[in-house]
Amino acid sequence: MFSEKSLKATTVIRVRFHECDPLQIVWHGNYLKYFEEGREDFSSKNGISYLQAKEHGFSTPIVKSVCEHKLPLHYGDVFEVETTFVNSEAAKIIFDYKIFKTGSLVCTGHTIQVFLNEKGELSLVNPLFFKDWKIKMGLI
Amino acid sequence: MFSEKSLKATTVIRVRFHECDPLQIVWHGNYLKYFEEGREDFSSKNGISYLQAKEHGFSTPIVKSVCEHKLPLHYGDVFEVETTFVNSEAAKIIFDYKIFKTGSLVCTGHTIQVFLNEKGELSLVNPLFFKDWKIKMGLI
Amino acid sequence: MFSEKSLKATTVIRVRFHECDPLQIVWHGNYLKYFEEGREDFSSKNGISYLQAKEHGFSTPIVKSVCEHKLPLHYGDVFEVETTFVNSEAAKIIFDYKIFKTGSLVCTGHTIQVFLNEKGELSLVNPLFFKDWKIKMGLI
Amino acid sequence: MFSEKSLKATTVIRVRFHECDPLQIVWHGNYLKYFEEGREDFSSKNGISYLQAKEHGFSTPIVKSVCEHKLPLHYGDVFEVETTFVNSEAAKIIFDYKIFKTGSLVCTGHTIQVFLNEKGELSLVNPLFFKDWKIKMGLI
Repeated sequence: MFSEKSLKATTVIRVRFHECDPLQIVWHGNYLKYFEEGREDFSSKNGISYLQAKEHGFSTPIVKSVCEHKLPLHYGDVFEVETTFVNSEAAKIIFDYKIFKTGSLVCTGHTIQVFLNEKGELSLVNPLFFKDWKIKMGLI
Repeated sequence: MFSEKSLKATTVIRVRFHECDPLQIVWHGNYLKYFEEGREDFSSKNGISYLQAKEHGFSTPIVKSVCEHKLPLHYGDVFEVETTFVNSEAAKIIFDYKIFKTGSLVCTGHTIQVFLNEKGELSLVNPLFFKDWKIKMGLI
Repeated sequence: MFSEKSLKATTVIRVRFHECDPLQIVWHGNYLKYFEEGREDFSSKNGISYLQAKEHGFSTPIVKSVCEHKLPLHYGDVFEVETTFVNSEAAKIIFDYKIFKTGSLVCTGHTIQVFLNEKGELSLVNPLFFKDWKIKMGLI
Repeated sequence: MFSEKSLKATTVIRVRFHECDPLQIVWHGNYLKYFEEGREDFSSKNGISYLQAKEHGFSTPIVKSVCEHKLPLHYGDVFEVETTFVNSEAAKIIFDYKIFKTGSLVCTGHTIQVFLNEKGELSLVNPLFFKDWKIKMGLI
């Protein structure tokens, strides 16, 4: 049976000085670092990290990322990255992200990763270790 | 009359070591730096930079960014960012990006910026200085 | 009376993927981010942050930074930054840093900051707010 | 015979927006990126790059870096990194850096690299490929 809780991770981060730009807000490109931090947190909590993929002979490069900003973040702000695993039949790892500050939506985002084997070839089907993980998580 | 050439800028960049990740490729988030470098190059060539907006009392934060990867970039690669200004009636600054390495398409991208006045309020119409620039460029 | 404890802060950080380079270790320049994170943690715990300096009309740019590496850090490593305030009579803010991973010394570092007033002029004496802070901390 | 010219490289860089911090100046940690850009430029001009070391089974991690700031750099500034190879008998690669803006000294710096073999062991003597390079450059 599927556990809704296990498909989401919430990560608390504080804005660092060097992440802010001359407009006194977090530079837009740094949100991809926050998404990565959320994704890694989800992955380590759920046993599906970059290193696990590597052990099975796969790398999982990002092929698409999207970020939409609603509100700025400032130096010292504490915020939450909510990372949601999006189940898909395709041989892809898809995550949605929402960043909240004291309950307000700061931004939304989205990343897509694919599986490359050790020769750097795109895998058109889900690798066995990923299928096993999905079964363990009650996703298939 | 409208000059197609002036709506595009091509910027040559070399991948730096610190931009690469443990997969031996440019970390995906760094493409937003390349897009920014392309956008700044376009802007300085065409007289519409961040500083000019600031002089007129506006900041132009990014509200959306998209990046789609076709091929990786590696340490030392020399590539071209092709930045294209997308003319729009909305009070927005829109750019499309294409990155090429020796003729092959490496990635495509897209950013949207809005105008905030000195109070941080969203401008629903194009500021005068931006309209003037569009007229000068033959876009309206 | 002087409290030794208050002159030191320990900050726990986990290495993020984008902080690692093609050698599979944290890129050397990112240690300055870790030092900053340690410094900010010390400062927020002890009421002497960048924002407090700003309120009193001062900025505190870094004029010197040193980092010496003993051991590498890898992706996913959890480590401690030990930030120590170095008391000095000069109009400077000096910090020493030590990074430890499971008890082993990973690197040492050092930063010096000065006080600039709102005109950007170097302050040759400690600003009043900084003296007050030192008195409160039992340092003078 | 030794050619003084070949021991120095000058690299022209323009400050990018994302390199600047809320103080409207280049964030101090980004100077290590500029030093790296200077070092890579020197290395590619003189045939002694990271990739050449790797081909010979060595990595060359940085074990010490120092940066001293005299003047700030601002968004859009064009500056020169002057990278100087410091000849040393030790099994080390040492570089000095000076950054100039329109003739004024902005900062000075220094990095030390060591040689690690494929097992990650420190080489106490200069690897053969590095000795050969020094001979070719007239340094020994």
